[in-house]
Formats: sequence, structure tokens, C-alpha cells
Amino acid sequence: MRIVLANPNATAAITEACATLARAAASPGTEIVPWTNAQGPPVVDSLYNDYRAGAALANGLVALDSEADAIVLAGFGNYGTGAVKEALRIPVLNMAEAAMAFATPLCHRFAIVTTSPRMIAYTEDVVQVFGFASRCVAVRAVPLPPIDAPEPPEDEIVDRLAAEAEIAHASTGADLIVLGGARLSPYAIALRQRTTMTVVEPVACGVAMAESLVRIGLSQSKIGKFASPPGYTPER
Amino acid sequence: MRIVLANPNATAAITEACATLARAAASPGTEIVPWTNAQGPPVVDSLYNDYRAGAALANGLVALDSEADAIVLAGFGNYGTGAVKEALRIPVLNMAEAAMAFATPLCHRFAIVTTSPRMIAYTEDVVQVFGFASRCVAVRAVPLPPIDAPEPPEDEIVDRLAAEAEIAHASTGADLIVLGGARLSPYAIALRQRTTMTVVEPVACGVAMAESLVRIGLSQSKIGKFASPPGYTPER
Amino acid sequence: MRIVLANPNATAAITEACATLARAAASPGTEIVPWTNAQGPPVVDSLYNDYRAGAALANGLVALDSEADAIVLAGFGNYGTGAVKEALRIPVLNMAEAAMAFATPLCHRFAIVTTSPRMIAYTEDVVQVFGFASRCVAVRAVPLPPIDAPEPPEDEIVDRLAAEAEIAHASTGADLIVLGGARLSPYAIALRQRTTMTVVEPVACGVAMAESLVRIGLSQSKIGKFASPPGYTPER
Amino acid sequence: MRIVLANPNATAAITEACATLARAAASPGTEIVPWTNAQGPPVVDSLYNDYRAGAALANGLVALDSEADAIVLAGFGNYGTGAVKEALRIPVLNMAEAAMAFATPLCHRFAIVTTSPRMIAYTEDVVQVFGFASRCVAVRAVPLPPIDAPEPPEDEIVDRLAAEAEIAHASTGADLIVLGGARLSPYAIALRQRTTMTVVEPVACGVAMAESLVRIGLSQSKIGKFASPPGYTPER
Amino acid sequence: MRIVLANPNATAAITEACATLARAAASPGTEIVPWTNAQGPPVVDSLYNDYRAGAALANGLVALDSEADAIVLAGFGNYGTGAVKEALRIPVLNMAEAAMAFATPLCHRFAIVTTSPRMIAYTEDVVQVFGFASRCVAVRAVPLPPIDAPEPPEDEIVDRLAAEAEIAHASTGADLIVLGGARLSPYAIALRQRTTMTVVEPVACGVAMAESLVRIGLSQSKIGKFASPPGYTPER
Amino acid sequence: MRIVLANPNATAAITEACATLARAAASPGTEIVPWTNAQGPPVVDSLYNDYRAGAALANGLVALDSEADAIVLAGFGNYGTGAVKEALRIPVLNMAEAAMAFATPLCHRFAIVTTSPRMIAYTEDVVQVFGFASRCVAVRAVPLPPIDAPEPPEDEIVDRLAAEAEIAHASTGADLIVLGGARLSPYAIALRQRTTMTVVEPVACGVAMAESLVRIGLSQSKIGKFASPPGYTPER
Repeated sequence: MRIVLANPNATAAITEACATLARAAASPGTEIVPWTNAQGPPVVDSLYNDYRAGAALANGLVALDSEADAIVLAGFGNYGTGAVKEALRIPVLNMAEAAMAFATPLCHRFAIVTTSPRMIAYTEDVVQVFGFASRCVAVRAVPLPPIDAPEPPEDEIVDRLAAEAEIAHASTGADLIVLGGARLSPYAIALRQRTTMTVVEPVACGVAMAESLVRIGLSQSKIGKFASPPGYTPER
Repeated sequence: MRIVLANPNATAAITEACATLARAAASPGTEIVPWTNAQGPPVVDSLYNDYRAGAALANGLVALDSEADAIVLAGFGNYGTGAVKEALRIPVLNMAEAAMAFATPLCHRFAIVTTSPRMIAYTEDVVQVFGFASRCVAVRAVPLPPIDAPEPPEDEIVDRLAAEAEIAHASTGADLIVLGGARLSPYAIALRQRTTMTVVEPVACGVAMAESLVRIGLSQSKIGKFASPPGYTPER
Repeated sequence: MRIVLANPNATAAITEACATLARAAASPGTEIVPWTNAQGPPVVDSLYNDYRAGAALANGLVALDSEADAIVLAGFGNYGTGAVKEALRIPVLNMAEAAMAFATPLCHRFAIVTTSPRMIAYTEDVVQVFGFASRCVAVRAVPLPPIDAPEPPEDEIVDRLAAEAEIAHASTGADLIVLGGARLSPYAIALRQRTTMTVVEPVACGVAMAESLVRIGLSQSKIGKFASPPGYTPER
Repeated sequence: MRIVLANPNATAAITEACATLARAAASPGTEIVPWTNAQGPPVVDSLYNDYRAGAALANGLVALDSEADAIVLAGFGNYGTGAVKEALRIPVLNMAEAAMAFATPLCHRFAIVTTSPRMIAYTEDVVQVFGFASRCVAVRAVPLPPIDAPEPPEDEIVDRLAAEAEIAHASTGADLIVLGGARLSPYAIALRQRTTMTVVEPVACGVAMAESLVRIGLSQSKIGKFASPPGYTPER
Repeated sequence: MRIVLANPNATAAITEACATLARAAASPGTEIVPWTNAQGPPVVDSLYNDYRAGAALANGLVALDSEADAIVLAGFGNYGTGAVKEALRIPVLNMAEAAMAFATPLCHRFAIVTTSPRMIAYTEDVVQVFGFASRCVAVRAVPLPPIDAPEPPEDEIVDRLAAEAEIAHASTGADLIVLGGARLSPYAIALRQRTTMTVVEPVACGVAMAESLVRIGLSQSKIGKFASPPGYTPER
Repeated sequence: MRIVLANPNATAAITEACATLARAAASPGTEIVPWTNAQGPPVVDSLYNDYRAGAALANGLVALDSEADAIVLAGFGNYGTGAVKEALRIPVLNMAEAAMAFATPLCHRFAIVTTSPRMIAYTEDVVQVFGFASRCVAVRAVPLPPIDAPEPPEDEIVDRLAAEAEIAHASTGADLIVLGGARLSPYAIALRQRTTMTVVEPVACGVAMAESLVRIGLSQSKIGKFASPPGYTPER
């Protein structure tokens, strides 16, 4: 099985980090094909960059419709997920919706940690759009520096993630935390050592759910919202 | 006062039709500056084209931040409305949200008519994203031909709009109808002769609300969801 | 254009203060006609006074149906708003619904500040009745003294309004504040100097939206909830 | 125990019909004291009359605070129920909220039948205000003639009530019907012979719940929404 | 009238304590018949014990369908309440739903106090299942020791209940508290001396509402969710 | 990997049919271990049997906590799913929640078909309990005969399933159908030939999601709702 792991932004280092997580999660026999949205912004840190990313993404991915079995969109946001589902026939999954689909049976309520205060509102809208608002009780932030600045030491980030998890648990009763950004995903393993909350890492969820869809023969319904665009002729 | 009326698609004929409606609705002294999203798709008839439109839109409009008093986005959809609000400091209003904001105090429940069955799901999501789901009881469609095909006679379209309005009223109790597409707006006057339902035409609402915002000194809040994108340097 | 600015309570000083705000917000050519609900209570500070105000209000305003172009109800409450919309054919707008209709496109979530702790529950119901509950995340209070007691110095009230705005922002993510009482409206300008949150002052919103409705030819739908009362013969 | 059965409208014949139902439902030892809102409208058939009724009601009932054990408001509407709860210390129950409180444990979903199409929107708002919207799936109408016109034969009204009940059951899955108007209450017994749906008659529910509140020593909370109005001095 | 007061757990001391409360709440002439779910768990302190209790409960109670007038389930949980309603024709009421049905007209918002932190999530689900989520703003806990350990002094428990009530009032605006566990019910009288919040004790509500249902001739609808199980032959 | 496929009812033929579907969906290397709830009812066709099934289920499965990698509950209902999650540490998934978790990213709105009209209300509650109510727009029924009666020919059942799918699509806009009962699962393949709607078969979803959870190391959170029951000592 061939799964394209599409990073919605143009930063190859993030693609690589996600590919590592994806390969660790994949079944034997699954090939993970990393793909970077070279025409997209360096990071999806705003609605503005969400749209820049999305427009390039659908165009870029459509060529893969016959060359892959499924596509996992490896960013915790919207950035045109529905547009990609429309444009392609193979299963397209956003890692955010996969993570929330996995979190739902595992908990009473979940919280999400995002990468900057300004992404809290954005993330709340993503939760609503993807249909999981009834189970998400909090979105909190562990701010990361700009993508081209040096990252703080892992310990510091994990400490702050654990602290936000505890605050969410104590103040809202959340019993599971979703890492709400591709840049946070690499800290999942270390975070699990530091908190009693269940930690959901979205890249793994996206890969696992995409494999499942392929294996059981499901894809997005093409008779409604995700029907192919009228007179669809993708740009080349 | 200078209000840019921005058509999110690339079809100049729609821009012109909207500009005519906008001028009819504007106060004396308001200049309506039509703007066509030349880099966008011919029509926003899918999520795919929504993203294509939106990415071009934010980029195209940002230059106008210092040259206009407000911007009205003259399409009944999302197409990156939040991205434009982020990127600009002057008030940015989507005509869909203006129409629903005006409809809310005027009715018990409203229905929306869109331009094709495939846009019903899309429009339901737009209603949710813009915060008016508790008052919208139905989205129905009067299918229009492709943008480059000849339009049916006005009478026929108005008949079908009136029929959909009556169905919405009888089956859901809606007492107000919102015309959910720029291509439907020119039929508002004729439709009002054919139905007892109140008919809300969004271009007029967008212009009127934008004028109001300018006059009373309000714009989108820049401390949360619509804060300027980090390190924002629009492409030129 | 003639807009009646109807104060639902009997306190002429509040009518005057609102009229000043209304005139500052009105377009050239709009005449603001202040009207005091002389048969109403001195202030709408309870459900009991809400009903006293409302019964007098509908009766008092019906005579104006042919003498004005629109009516703005200048109190942040319910007090029979629907009854007035039923009884009249000209557009009737409550300044609370106008304020929330304007706030919705400008923010992610808004908070309201009311004038006493006991009005918090009342205001939450008003938000629900007017259809804006999905965007309102908090109602907070800056208690004012009784209407016939001396008002504290402006600075003190503005300080407390700014403090409540900050608390709402920090604890709920609200990025816009609505002044939820006619007695608070005069502090809007000073408050804007003291907070980074967008401040929505309802009198201006009511006037602006009423002007818009008149200009674009809309009024409350008369085929449903706001149809004229059966066998309606207003008392004189 | 002394329970005042307060008809919110001025039509004594309705008071009497409700009193008959109330006495049939009351426990031995409970005295039903009928009270007619002589200053109110002949019938609450609009928001306008809702407010006229409510203002008179609170004023009229306040004298009974020390002379009764509880008050049942015998109209299926709002008409200032909260104002009466504020003004009095003894338990005040609207028969609509009592009926919905009893219906909730008895069914999956309930429907309400009201007395005219124009009261459907009104009734939907009443359901929301009283907190039962999650269980009410439909409001339908069996139109009655004006209060001063001759009533159709009982059989005809019961037939139409049964028909509406069946439509509600078939189209929405409702398994219980609430009679949504004091004028419909007398048909409950005959209706039960004609439908398999459980029929809830609100006067009986109001009396039974009021008796219960008195017996177990509960009344509306006076520390929040229903606290006594500030400086409360009812008119005499 | 004969009302069976069925304790869903196997602890006779709880049955007795509830019976005392029930008899104090009952009308003259009502016989309270205590019943202990001897096949159930000692206490319903988990979902696991909820199911153990419920399976035994429906089986045990079905024999009483012709020997009692109504059944009150005297535990604050779900434990198969719907199963018992299905299996019997006489009215079956869970004291939790009775308590919330009584609380709704008496307050703006209510809070529930349960007996351990782990029952908060459980109780939130109970509120949702029984249809009262729109009015319940908080579930808090006053932890009690295991059922076979010595109970702390009454004063201590009442102090902590009062403290939780105050926190709920201050942080969420709740103006009424529901005691969410049979083990908390005996503290209602003492708690009322210690808090200004209205305190709802569910056993009394269950008895009062059950009496009412019998008197006015209502029971759960048997044409939908609570229809008798197909081919129903209870085990003996 | 060893996955126990637990049929909540006692009918071995259903276990076998589900095991066939499960093996077809499983990855190479996954062992499907069928398990029949021999102490449960022959079919879960009521709330009464839901509780009978659930109590036996948790008790029966707890012994498998150390002998399997995950458990899939192969019935479309609730029947104590939370109790099993509490009692075990290995991942426990109900096939209904797995099906809805998979359906959510694949559609705009989904409909469920259940096996009898009386299970519609039951299924609506299941959807709510499992957290997917915002995406489920309809529950419809294709009635099956009692478990011990001869089944109609496959063609007839598939015809009726296709008809219900079309009605759901036309009347509610659902673009995906979930087969809401283990007895319907075997018709999935034939149904896909007869409808353009995407058909989700829950056994396959349950197996696929359970495999995923094991592979990526996730299980239900044990710090909240699903914490081990206090002093838990399962019956033997």
C-alpha cells in the first residue's frame, strides 16, 4: 500500500519529522511517500496561510490520484481538506480529523494543545468544521518560536505540554490530550512519560486510519459535499 | 466613503451585476469600487474553487488596505473571508454574513436558496462557520446553468425561487429567504413581487453594513482570530 | 429619514444620553426622534420591570407606525421587542440585537458587560432569544448604583469595564466586548482608550442598522412570528 | 393547601374550564382558587398580548404572596412567568413548564399542539426559554376560532388533534403529545380515546407539580434570576 | 396509593435512609414500599456497577407491575432506567430525572454534587441522557468513603457540600444545587441551613412526581422508546 | 495480534457471520477470536436486553484482559460499552463508535439504518452517547423478523436497504449510510451494488480501528470516565 503523507506547508524538515512518525506507525508493507507542499507557506500559522496552503495543496495532490492508495494531510488545521477530498477519488484524511476520530472512543472529553495563542481560535473552528465539538472541552497553547528560529530544548517543551495537559484536566475534566500541530508530534513519546493523560499523536492516527480505509475499501462519499468539482480540470 | 466590492471569482459580468446592486443600496457620497478576483476561478462552485478564490483574494486585496474604507466580499461563501480579515485593518465583510446578520432580527427562522444541489452542503457549512446556524432552518437550491451557458429567462428563475421559498415556508416555518449566491441577487426585486416571504439580497446588506461599520468606527478585532498574520509580508 | 429612538424606561436622562450617541452615529439627513416610555419603569432592572416596560412600549409606539421610518429600541434587554415588531410595519430593531449582529462578523467570540450581577442571567436569556448564543462566551457585570443615586466618576467605571473586558479575554478568549446597557453606552469612547478589545456600543449599531434597513427596503417579516396581532386594535 | 390558578387572560370562561380540570387533578385537601387576569387581554394570541398579559399579571398576583401556598399560571405561553417568579416568594409554576417537566421522563421526544399557526413560532420560543428544546421535536397547530366566536363541535376538534398527533408521530418519532393551550386542555380525555400517543394536559401537571413543591418545601431560587426586583414596590 | 421505592444497589441501609426521606415527602395515604436490589452491587460507583445494577433491577421489579401504582428508582444514575420503563406499564421514575424536572422551573441554571470525582463524567452523561443538559452548568464532587467504611461526621460533609455549592454559584452562576447521590440526600435539611442556594433533594422529588403521575393518570408512553420488549418474558 | 470479536448477544450464528466479516477486514497476522455472550439475551432488541447483555458482557470479557490485544464489541448499540472499557486495560471498541468515527471524515452527514422501528429511538440515544450527533441526520429502519424466524431473501432486504438509503439522501442530504445492526452487516457488499451512497459496515471498521489502536499504542484513558471500578473484583 502506498500512502502519501502530504505536508501542507513548504518546510521540508517538518515533512521529514512527520515521515519518521508515519513510518513508525505504518503496517509492514505500507510505503510512506512524503510530499512537501512546495508552493505553500513555510508554516500554516494563520488563516491567510491556511488558504495559501490549501490552494496549492489541491492542485499539487491531484496528480497523485492514480499513483497512491490514500493521502494523509499532515497538518493540524483545515487548509482546504474538503477541496482535496473533492478533487481526488482515493481516500483523503486530515490528521486532525483522524486524531479526533480516534480520541472520541477513548475518553470522556479531550483537549487540544496548539502551537500559539493565536491558533486557539483557528483550532476551535477546525474542531467544529470536522464535527467533533461536542467532545472537545479546551484548546490550549504551548507557544513555539518561528519556524526559522532555534527550537527550545525538548525538555522545556515537554514540561510545558505536560503543564497544559494538567491544567486542562483539572479545569475541564479532559482525560485525553491531542497534540494539535505537526511541530508538536515528535514530543508525544516523551510527553507520555510525563503525564497520566492519554496522549494522541495525529500523524500516527492519520496513517493508521488511512491504511484502514484502503484495506476495507472506503473513501469519501462522492455524491454530496465531496463530489468532484463541476467541469473539473486541475491546473498543471 | 470608498467601499471596494470584491467579487471572489474572475467573472467580470458578475462583478458588474453586483456593482449595480451595490450602487443602488449605497448612501449618497459612497463610492463603490468594483474589483474582480482575476486570479480566481470563474465561479466558486466547489470547495476546490473556494480555496483557489481565497488564496488569490487575500493577496489581491491587501494592497487596498490604505486605499479604501471597507471591503465587501461579494460572494455567498467562505473563500477565505477570515484570511482577508486577518490581512487587512479596514473592515472586511462577507455579504453572506451581512445578509444573515440582517435576517436575524427580521424573522423567526430563515432559509437560504443556493445555485446548485452540490452547494447545499457547502452553504450549510458557511452558515455554521459564520455563526448563524441556530436561525437557519433550510438550505435549498435553484440550479443555474454553468457560468458560460445561457441563463434561463428571468421569469423561469423567479418562478423557481418563489417555489423554493414557499416549500421552505411550508415545511420548516421559515418566514424569510436569503438569496445565497451573487448570481441570484439580481432577481431579488422580481422575487419580492412573487412571494409573501421577506427576501434578503446580500449585496445590499454587505454595502449597508460596511458603510455602518465605517461610520461608527468599527472593524474586525485584531487581538484574536483576525490578528495580522505573524511576520506578514504579502506577496506582490 | 426619521428614526425614533425609543427608551424602554421612563428616565429622560437616559433617553437624552442615548439620543446624543444616536445623533453622533446617524448619517447626514437622518433625524433622531427621542422617545421616552413614560408609562414604563424608571429602569429595566428585572424581569418584572421588563414586562412593565414592554406592555407600555408596544402601546406607546404603535401610533408612530406611520410617522417614522424605523424604530430603535434603546435598551439592552428584551422588554417586548417581539411585541413591538408584531404591532408595527416599519422596521423595529432592538439595540441589543443590532449590537450582536454587528459583533458577529468582527470577532471570534464576544462577551457582554451588564450593569448588575442580577442582570447576568437576564442577559444570557436575551442573547439566546435573539439568536446569538453560539458566539457569546461570557456575560459579566460592572454594577452601577440605582438610577437615582449619584453615578461614580467616569474613570472608575471605565477602569472596571476595562478590567472586566480583560478578564473575559483571558478566561474565555473573547476578542470583542459589547456594552450591555444603555447606562454603559456613554463610556464607550473612553473605554476604547483603555482596552485592546474591540468595543461595540449598541446605540450606534441600532441607529446604523435601522438606517440600513430603511435604505435597502427591509422590515420584519409579517408572515410568521411578527405578523400583526389578530384583530389588532391598539389601545389609545 | 391553597393553590391559586391564575388565568393570564381576561376570559372568565377559560378560567372556569381550567378550574374544573385543576380540581379534578388536585389532591384531597387542596383548595383551587381561580383567578382571572381582568386587566389582561381576552386571549394571549400574540407577543403583543403576551406582554399585556404579563405586566398585569405580576402586578395582580403579588398581593397573593401571603395568601396562597403556590400559584399555577394557567396559560401555555411565557407572558411574564419570570416576572411573577421574581415578584413572589411562594412557588410560581407555569403550566407549560410543568407539562414539559412531566413529559420529559415519559417519552423519547414530544410534540406540542397549539391553537393557531401563528402561535407555532411563539411556542417554539417558549419551549426554548423554559429549557426543554432538546426533547421537543415538533410544534403543530389545530386552529381554533376567535375567543368570542362559537367553538366547533368537540368531535371535530378531537379529530383534528388526533390527526396532528399522528402526523407528529409518523414524521418525527414523537411518542407523546402536549396540549399547548388552555383552550385545548378540556379535550384531553376525549383525545386519549382517539390516539395511542400519551397525552399530557398541562393544567393537571401544573396543579400536581405545585402541590408537590409546597409539600416538599421548594420554591424558585431567590439568589439569581428570580431574586426580588431591586427596590421592589408593586403598584397597587 | 402504593409506591415502590427501589434502591438500585444492594445496601439495605441506603434503602432505609431513602425510605425515611420518601415517607416524609409522601402525601397522607401513600404507602412507601422499600425495595432493595439484592442482586445488584453494594453501590453504583462505576459504569460496571451501573450495568450490574440495571440488569438485576428490571428483572426484579417486573413482578411488581400489578402490585404497585408507581416505582421510584432511588439512585442518582442511569442503571437501566429505560429498561425498567420498557418492562413495566406502571409509571417508573428515576429520582435523578424527577429532581432535574423539578429544578428546571426553579432556577436559571443548576449544579449537581456527586459523591466522587470519578462519578462526574458519569453524571454528566446521566444529565444528557435524561434531557436536561441545557440547564446543568456544573457537576462537582464531595467524595464519600467506600460504602463499608465509617462515614465522616455530618458537619464535615455538610460543610463540604456548602463549599461546593458556593463554588458552583460563584464560578458558573448556578442558583440551585441538586444532591446527586442517594448517600447525599440525608444531608439536605442541614445543607439548607448553610447555603443560600436552593437545595433539591431527589428522593422527595421522585416520590412527589410519582404520586402526581398516578393521580393524573400518566405513565411512560408505550408506543416508542419504552414499548414493551418484543416477546417479553421476564426471567423468574 | 489477537483481537477478540465479542458478540453482545447469545446467538452464535451472528457471532459467526461477524467473524467472517472481521477476518475479511483484518490485516495479515491478526487473529480474530470470536466470543459469544452466552449469558446474554438472544438479541439486543430493547433497552431491557441491552442491560441484560451488558452486565454479562463486562463480567465475561474481563478474563480476556491479559489474553488479547484488543476487543471489538460486535453489536450496534450501547449494552455497557463504557463498563467494559472501565473493566479492561486493553483497547475496547464498540463497532458502532468505530463506524461513526470512520463515517465522519468521509461525508457531510450520515444516516443509520437499524433493524426495527422500535430501535430508532434507541439508536438515536446511542449516537448521542457516543458523541456523533452533530453529523447523524437520520435513523431509519428496515425491519427484520425475530432472530429465530426465517430471514427474507437477501434481494428483498437489500432492496429495502437501498430504498431507505435513497429516502435518507433525498430527505436529509445524507451522503453516507451506516448499517446499524450486526444482522445487517452481511448485506453491505450487495448493498454497495445498489446505491450510490457510501456504505459503512461496522464490523470491518471495528476491526480496523482496533488493529490501529494496538499498533500505535493507544487505549481508553484510565484517569477519568473509564478508570477501573473502585475496589474492582470481577465475579467469576
